[in-house]
Amino acid sequence: MSDIRKTIAGGATWQEVAEDRRRHRDASIAKWTTPEDLTREELTMTNHNVEDLAGALAMGHPSAECITSAFLRRAAGAQGVVNCITELLPDRAMQRAKELDAYFAKHGKPIGPLHGVPVSVKEHIAMKGLDLNAGFVSWVGRVAEEDALLLQILWDAGAVFHARTTEPQTIMHLETSSNLYGVTANPFNQTLTAGGSSGGEGALVGLRGSVLGIGTDVGGSIRSPAANNGVFGFKPTSGRLPVLGWAAPMAGCEAILGTIGPLSTSLAGVKLFMKTVVDAKPWLKSPDLVALDWKDTSGLFREKRLKVAVMWDDGVVKPHPPITRALNDIVMKLNKSQNIDVVDWAPRDHDRAWSIIAGLYFADGGAQTSEAINASGEPWRPLSEWIIKDNPHVKKHDVASLWAACAERDKYRQMYAELWNTRADVDVILCPAGPSVAPKLDSARYWGYTSQWNLLDYPAVAFPVKDHVSVDRDGTGEATYAPRNDADEYNWSQWKEHGAEGYKGAPISLQLVGRRYNDEKVLAALEVILKEAGLPTTVPPAAETTPQPLGMPVFQSSSSMA
Amino acid sequence: MSDIRKTIAGGATWQEVAEDRRRHRDASIAKWTTPEDLTREELTMTNHNVEDLAGALAMGHPSAECITSAFLRRAAGAQGVVNCITELLPDRAMQRAKELDAYFAKHGKPIGPLHGVPVSVKEHIAMKGLDLNAGFVSWVGRVAEEDALLLQILWDAGAVFHARTTEPQTIMHLETSSNLYGVTANPFNQTLTAGGSSGGEGALVGLRGSVLGIGTDVGGSIRSPAANNGVFGFKPTSGRLPVLGWAAPMAGCEAILGTIGPLSTSLAGVKLFMKTVVDAKPWLKSPDLVALDWKDTSGLFREKRLKVAVMWDDGVVKPHPPITRALNDIVMKLNKSQNIDVVDWAPRDHDRAWSIIAGLYFADGGAQTSEAINASGEPWRPLSEWIIKDNPHVKKHDVASLWAACAERDKYRQMYAELWNTRADVDVILCPAGPSVAPKLDSARYWGYTSQWNLLDYPAVAFPVKDHVSVDRDGTGEATYAPRNDADEYNWSQWKEHGAEGYKGAPISLQLVGRRYNDEKVLAALEVILKEAGLPTTVPPAAETTPQPLGMPVFQSSSSMA
Repeated sequence: MSDIRKTIAGGATWQEVAEDRRRHRDASIAKWTTPEDLTREELTMTNHNVEDLAGALAMGHPSAECITSAFLRRAAGAQGVVNCITELLPDRAMQRAKELDAYFAKHGKPIGPLHGVPVSVKEHIAMKGLDLNAGFVSWVGRVAEEDALLLQILWDAGAVFHARTTEPQTIMHLETSSNLYGVTANPFNQTLTAGGSSGGEGALVGLRGSVLGIGTDVGGSIRSPAANNGVFGFKPTSGRLPVLGWAAPMAGCEAILGTIGPLSTSLAGVKLFMKTVVDAKPWLKSPDLVALDWKDTSGLFREKRLKVAVMWDDGVVKPHPPITRALNDIVMKLNKSQNIDVVDWAPRDHDRAWSIIAGLYFADGGAQTSEAINASGEPWRPLSEWIIKDNPHVKKHDVASLWAACAERDKYRQMYAELWNTRADVDVILCPAGPSVAPKLDSARYWGYTSQWNLLDYPAVAFPVKDHVSVDRDGTGEATYAPRNDADEYNWSQWKEHGAEGYKGAPISLQLVGRRYNDEKVLAALEVILKEAGLPTTVPPAAETTPQPLGMPVFQSSSSMA
Repeated sequence: MSDIRKTIAGGATWQEVAEDRRRHRDASIAKWTTPEDLTREELTMTNHNVEDLAGALAMGHPSAECITSAFLRRAAGAQGVVNCITELLPDRAMQRAKELDAYFAKHGKPIGPLHGVPVSVKEHIAMKGLDLNAGFVSWVGRVAEEDALLLQILWDAGAVFHARTTEPQTIMHLETSSNLYGVTANPFNQTLTAGGSSGGEGALVGLRGSVLGIGTDVGGSIRSPAANNGVFGFKPTSGRLPVLGWAAPMAGCEAILGTIGPLSTSLAGVKLFMKTVVDAKPWLKSPDLVALDWKDTSGLFREKRLKVAVMWDDGVVKPHPPITRALNDIVMKLNKSQNIDVVDWAPRDHDRAWSIIAGLYFADGGAQTSEAINASGEPWRPLSEWIIKDNPHVKKHDVASLWAACAERDKYRQMYAELWNTRADVDVILCPAGPSVAPKLDSARYWGYTSQWNLLDYPAVAFPVKDHVSVDRDGTGEATYAPRNDADEYNWSQWKEHGAEGYKGAPISLQLVGRRYNDEKVLAALEVILKEAGLPTTVPPAAETTPQPLGMPVFQSSSSMA
């Protein structure tokens, strides 16, 4: 099934390898695209969310085969719109679905809490027997020997893996562009990025080719694509979900721990995912994890009034007007709630936070990542250049300077803990998920709104506010503002240049953040906030939100793609 | 109070600095030593354990002042026997005790669960205003700006800090020998070590100059001195107790995490310490910690039959006959228990575990530690030479090789988790706490029985079996055995050379180990095991066990001490 004909090791050029991967991708999809739109039945099924699907499947109707087939078709269609898939998995998925249906027929009950639920998976999370290239041409041909632990757990819970999705070269962009698969575009406005690095997941879930996907996040890589595509995306505290079996350069690096987590069309989907995985006690198999059970928070904010602190601006880069407008809208609603107290959050030294984390991402000076790119001769994508070569904080550390940098990191974490202790009754911070809605392609350069919480290892969820950029409400981009620094200048220049017209249709999302290990509380608080603000806890069916009909031709990638 | 007249920075020689530190130590003790033995009342008070003292103090009688005074006197006496103290804290302790008595008089209740309980503290744990030299002559003169977080928590719980205790040069011996304070000897046999690196604590608690002390452990440094002195010593899982505020070289190093924990004359003392600290939610102040509440295990082994796996030998270094005899004795008793299942534990690759951890202790090739020694011109102690200069696993890593070594560590942890998963019903491993009882001075060279559980980050408690080496029972050392390797050869040569006569009187201890984060379970299991084996959960009053009368002259240190 992995079907890898061309590799660098086998003597192929990088262009030949990439072409072969795309051929493989297209072949995996071919039978699942049709000239017509999805049937009404398929549309209806795929407009449901995880909790509905799991509930229906647990009753035995519709069958896992029906559901899987519908999502395979819808995912194939999504690929045609935004180029989000590295390979569709129809054979595996349909076989699995049939087995699940047979199980149900025999036992009269589901195999687990995700019985028959299709789940899409970012490419660099290992699937047995399949290529594991992590976005590097030179890595094509590395075949996973077994499923990543997370997938094993989800499999045991009944999941059906139906699609593998795109990620950028280096897996370290907040966009998704690689020489293997091209650029993943935003479903709502194809001049914008789907975000990244889990951009394939973001776009696929945004188009409901999947209602539950798995991404990874070390600086915003789950939350950026979730926010850009108007879906829910949760980065848990490190050590709660198993990352064992993902592929990335710099194995053994622990200065900043990457995380793995769900993207979903519903908050309930996120919760079900988290509970299912943690309930499996993954720490017994992956001893880096914390033995912390998933807490029931059903009564939490009945006993205690929720206190939300709002961070309007991180003090480094001012958010674009649509973000501030959305934040203002939700805060106005929350201010009227009898069940929530709203206060302001004054950020402290978020610029220093960025310099610390940006210096720890590539403590070898970027050597391993650069080698993974250069080994094939593939060109550097613009944002790879930006995060490694043009990043002033990247340094080739020795052990002593690495320790010093880690001590500096710990000091910052300490300071922030003390800051929160002075506001000890604050439960969560409500803030932007980024300095703008989905950026124009190759312009996602400010990570601070998400990477801040990676540095602090705080759980954080990106969520949509059921609103999109509109020229009427968001103006023309002529707002006057004197930027504070280069990053702020760059971000603001984007708004000045493109204005609301340039970002038209992009979903607006925000972010909710809690203290370390308060994963359950963050999700419980979000539910209260959405309810009190009159916002849905699910993404409306795609028919309402997707301006593009399904089944468009494959998006042609930009920039250095051959 | 810190009273530091001589420092290297101030131009003194290392000998002058060391002499000044000893002068300071002796001055702090002078008024608390008397020509006579302790009074009967003082002896009685100090023969009680933490739980009794805390209970009595919570009733207001005896006063904290009486208790503190008695322990100051007994600690001063212990110093005369084994040289375990860096400074006594009579002024601070008595003032604190008086304040606590005043509090009790006013409020009619204790200030916290440790109200008035004297607690001794290893020197490198910061105390505001006092020297923080970590055993290095060159560091003398560094004065702590505030108490370590752990001490702040214990203070809030009512603790009285009455003594600071010795540690070795580098804090990386399983003995206690420094050029500042000399050698800490074993109370039961002064030709033997007290163990280390928390050897001052071990010896002081062994002599009941303290019934609750704080040590630190990255390779056995709590358990070795606990075992060698016949007291309880618990190394928790990392991330459960705050280490914030300790002093050591290599700040920011996280490849192997050091831990902090209690030594006590009772298992209840260990438990009370753990519960008190964890209940204070230290993770809110030290964000490296895990937000894991202290679990109530009172019903645990009523619901589930305890399953103990016995590791007789780690496959690398064979324990001396007294250890094997003690293990055999307890297993015979447990085999008769209706409430415990006993099986064997086959160790796997413990030699590889040592090579991994020994290579990660000094990832800078020992540069920072060497610098801390060399900066004063003080001589290298023999075991400093051994662990850094003669250690074949020490390597000056670069970032890439450090990552690779960490990945190797993770692979080993993974392997061991899978090994335990194949024996999933095993609750705890019962094993030696070292390859021998307290070693002869400068011969504690095999760490594997303790460092194994640091590498795996498993909680482990050393405990006495109320037995001592005896010529009658342990023979003359002529047992024939063909060692497996150099470390085994060295350890066995010690037994051949010295035999039971050489180790006469040394307490025999064992170790109980659980899976990561199973701290509560390990302590609960130990209680069941001791009960079923008919062993006490407290150390018998010293009068029965200490061959040396209190008030002996100060022990003269050996080897390179000036």
